[in-house]
Order: sequence, then C-alpha cells, then structure tokens
Amino acid sequence: MDLLEQALKGSSRAIARLITLVENQGEGADEVMEEIYPHTGGAYIIGVTGPPGSGKSTLVDKITLKLIQQGFTAGIIAIDPSSPFTGGAVLGDRLRMKNVDTQDKVFIRSLSTRGSLGGLSRATCNTARILDACGKDFIVIETVGVGQDEVEIVSIADTSIVVLMPGTGDEIQTIKAGVMEIGDIFVVNKSDREGADRTAQMVRMMLELKQSVNNWTPPVVKTVATEDTGTGDLVEKLHSHREYLTQSGKFLERRKERVKTEIRKIVEERIGAQVKRFIEGRSSFNAMVEEVVARKKDPYACARELTESLKRLE
Amino acid sequence: MDLLEQALKGSSRAIARLITLVENQGEGADEVMEEIYPHTGGAYIIGVTGPPGSGKSTLVDKITLKLIQQGFTAGIIAIDPSSPFTGGAVLGDRLRMKNVDTQDKVFIRSLSTRGSLGGLSRATCNTARILDACGKDFIVIETVGVGQDEVEIVSIADTSIVVLMPGTGDEIQTIKAGVMEIGDIFVVNKSDREGADRTAQMVRMMLELKQSVNNWTPPVVKTVATEDTGTGDLVEKLHSHREYLTQSGKFLERRKERVKTEIRKIVEERIGAQVKRFIEGRSSFNAMVEEVVARKKDPYACARELTESLKRLE
Repeated sequence: MDLLEQALKGSSRAIARLITLVENQGEGADEVMEEIYPHTGGAYIIGVTGPPGSGKSTLVDKITLKLIQQGFTAGIIAIDPSSPFTGGAVLGDRLRMKNVDTQDKVFIRSLSTRGSLGGLSRATCNTARILDACGKDFIVIETVGVGQDEVEIVSIADTSIVVLMPGTGDEIQTIKAGVMEIGDIFVVNKSDREGADRTAQMVRMMLELKQSVNNWTPPVVKTVATEDTGTGDLVEKLHSHREYLTQSGKFLERRKERVKTEIRKIVEERIGAQVKRFIEGRSSFNAMVEEVVARKKDPYACARELTESLKRLE
Repeated sequence: MDLLEQALKGSSRAIARLITLVENQGEGADEVMEEIYPHTGGAYIIGVTGPPGSGKSTLVDKITLKLIQQGFTAGIIAIDPSSPFTGGAVLGDRLRMKNVDTQDKVFIRSLSTRGSLGGLSRATCNTARILDACGKDFIVIETVGVGQDEVEIVSIADTSIVVLMPGTGDEIQTIKAGVMEIGDIFVVNKSDREGADRTAQMVRMMLELKQSVNNWTPPVVKTVATEDTGTGDLVEKLHSHREYLTQSGKFLERRKERVKTEIRKIVEERIGAQVKRFIEGRSSFNAMVEEVVARKKDPYACARELTESLKRLE
C-alpha cells in the first residue's frame, strides 16, 4: 500500500492519513494494523497524566523539545476526553503547543472518544503503534486523569508521569492511593507557587508509606514548565527509569503482559459479536424481554438460560 | 433471608447492609439480586450530570426535598468517580447534603469505582435496583459528567438532567453535541451570576439546531439551588417529562432496550470468563506471546487463530 510505504518512510501527511483511516475503522484498517506490527516495538512510550490546570500540555511540550535536542524523534498523542465539558479546554491547550508542532521531528495528534466503550483506548493504542512503526523514538501520551479509559491508556505506557501542582492541605489529600500506584515519576509543576516544597514532601512521604514492590522509588521532580525549569532533570529521570526497566527485565515482562491482554481482548470482542448475533437472532428473545419488563422473569435467569443454550466453549 | 425482608420493609440499616453486600459481591449477592427483581420497576430514575462546580449536589438536595414534600420517598446515589484527583471534592459535596440525610424518607449512598471496568455502572444499577425494590418512588443518581462510565450510568435514568452554570462565550462552546443528546432537561444553576440569560439562550439555540427525533423539546430551567430558586419549576418539568414518556410509550420502550442490553451484558461477561480460561489454559499461549513480543507474529493473527480454535457459538 502506497500510503503505508510513505508513512513508514516518515511522511507526516501519510502518517496523519493512516491514523485517520484506522481511527475511523475505514476499509483496510485492520490490514494496515497487521502489516504495521512487525515494524513496531522500537518506540518508548511515556504516559503523562494529571488534573486539569496542572500544566500537563506545557510540560509535555518542554519534555518533547528536550528529547529532540538530544537527537531523538517524537510523537505526541493528546487525549481529548469524551467529556463534552472539558473538551474545549483541551483544545485550548493544544494551541499552546505550537512551538513543538513546527518542529519537523514531532508529530502531534489529538484523539477523542466518539465510539463505544473501549474505543478511546484502542484508538490510542493503534495511533501509538502507527507512530512507533513510522520510526518515532518516543511517544508521549497526554491524558486528563479521570475515569477508566484513562487508566487503561496509562497501562500502555512504559513510564508513567503523574503531574501535580502545589496545593493546600486539602488538595494534597486528594492525591490518593490510585495515583500513587500509577506513577513511575511524580512532578510538582508550577513549583514557583507557594507550597511546592510541602507538596513534594507530602508526595515523598506517601510514596514511603507504600510498600515498595520493586527496586524503583519514584522520584519527585519540581518543575516550572512555562519557564523550562526542572524539565532537564525530569528528562534525566525518564532515561533512568527506562534503564531500570530494561536492566531489571521488567520492560520485557510488562510488554508480555500487554500482549496477553491485547490478544484476549481481540478474541473477546469477536466472540462478543457472535454472542450478540446469537441472542438477538433468537425468535424467543423479544418474548423473554417482555416477560422481564413485566417482572415475570428476571434478567439473571434469562442470561443463564441463554448462556446454557450456547455451545460450551471448552 | 432476614436482611432482605427487613430491607423490603424499608429499614434503612438493612438497605445499607444489602447494598454493601452486593457492592462487595459478597456471598449470596447474586441470589439477592435475583430475589429482589420481582419487587422492582416501581421507582422512577433521575440522572443528574454536569461539570464539577456546577452545584449538582445542592440541586439534587433541593429536588429531593421537593419530592418528599410532595409525599414521595426518595433515594440518592452519588457517584464518586474513580479519579483520585476529584474524589476529595465529591466527598466534600456530600457534607452539604446533611439536611437531606436527616430526613427519614431519603436514603443516600456514595459509590466509587474500586473494581474493574464496568464495575461502577453495575454497582450503580444494582444499588438503584435495591432502592427500587425497597419502595423508593424516586431514585436520583448524581454523577460528574466525564468519561464512559458516566455515560453508561446516565443511560439507566428515565429522565436525565444536565446542569450547567453561567459562563463566558468560551465556556459555552464546551457544551458540545454529546451533552445535547443526553439531556431531557437542562438547568442553568447559579443563575444569579452574570451571563445566566445568555447561557440559557445559547442552550436553547443549540437545542433548536438539533433535529428533534421526538416530540419532547428539552426545557431550559434557571435555578439558584443554594436559595431554592427555580427548583420548584424544575420538579414540575420533571413530572412533565415523566408524563410525556409514559403517554408516548417511550417509557416502556426505553425500559425494554435496557433489559435487552442488560441480558446481553451478563451473557457476554460469562462467555468472556470462559474465553479467558480457554486462552490462558492453552499450553501454547505463552509461546505465542513470546513470538508476538519478538515481532515474529502479530496479535491480530493470534487472536484469529484462537477464535477459530474455539467452538463456533452459532
């Protein structure tokens, strides 16, 4: 395929068209993903998450510029959450990234949820894979840290960065266990504001309380992204974490787990489509639904009946 | 079961324990849900969604009080999103609801995501069903409008209320198509602030642009929840929408669709568990994963192979 060839050679226009094709599940989309796969695996994936207003976009901007200055190529995937409430703000953020966009070595793509459940994480995964195949050394995925979709997105990252900002005691309380488990590196951005040291200290304390399951203690880096302060340190920590993962064997371990999950999900999806056809194709299904609505039957019993009437899989 | 009997008689303590049992998927949880089902269907479900800071909790508080004054009983389910960033704020909101909590006729329950994907929407659905069986006339589900989980939660409501607040032009732009499709009633809360009329007008204009698929034009109600202004009007609109749904036959239609989806989901879940056991039980699966990680095979081909080796379902 001509488009694929051009993309693999690094043409930004071809890459963009390829991503659109796959995002819209256009004709040949599945084939493209299959053909692309052998070319992937070279890119290192960074996930950046944090609350709205923490300055994630500017930080991603600066990290990416640093990586380019070090001679790497990079792609940025910005997740525009499905929320109709926050969409606008995210688009506004993207405008601030113009100075990255003009660099020839960066490819920026915004994604939003239009499809069904799981649609966003699949689109993100596919986009990352395309950028990977097209030779990007680093792929930075930026997402607002809310909801299950985002947790899944972070799970495809090799290194996850959690961005926080200086806050009062109350705000620090909201840094809960969930975030502590996601982060490989913590950033206190906007650290020229009051309370930055205290926030950093609180995060360190909470990390200490956590039982360390491995030999990596997540560092806490203070930055002022708008002034490019501390970002060099952050990129250094990024390289350190990558080295730790590689040398400890965790890099390969994580990627194997990811492949397992991915294969299982594709199979489940295909079987799920068969189940839907089977159920809705049964002439008795509508009568069953009527009975449930009338409370003469319950949905659990119906589901049991249907599951039993399906052939056993094993 | 004694607990179930007490709950069905309306004991708040028994209801709370029942919800906890089901939420934690404790022993007998599935049986409880089956036994409860014939007692359900009487409650009317209201979904309230909107961005953080729009005053949803206070509004829910006031709506519920109005319904109680009209002689109804009610239950409130407040969704504490999985986000570690916003969790704290939601808890803070709950404290403001104390004056509802003390009323004997209201049952308030906060839910948060602890489990896996889909866990929150199932927990919400089950909790609503328990409150329904225990005789509540109205169940108000309050959720922050972000992410797929919340969209699913809203889908179980009979009437969905979208809460907005007065904003500048930029903010109004963020009221996107998604929200326009969710809302049966729109509220501009905090409407004592500047720009309330303009926001209400913008929403009306956007609703007009939308092709009306049915005979219900979502009303736009201005409220100041903290002062209980406009809330009576809102409750009236709520009753009107219920009447519209009932008379047009849409009420039954929606509930049938919901039953269909529910049955299908339960079957898919059970089949999914079988698929997982089948895949991971195959001795060749690990070797397959190694080949994919080494880029000698791609995950799509593996999934195809596995799907074909499963017995055909139909």
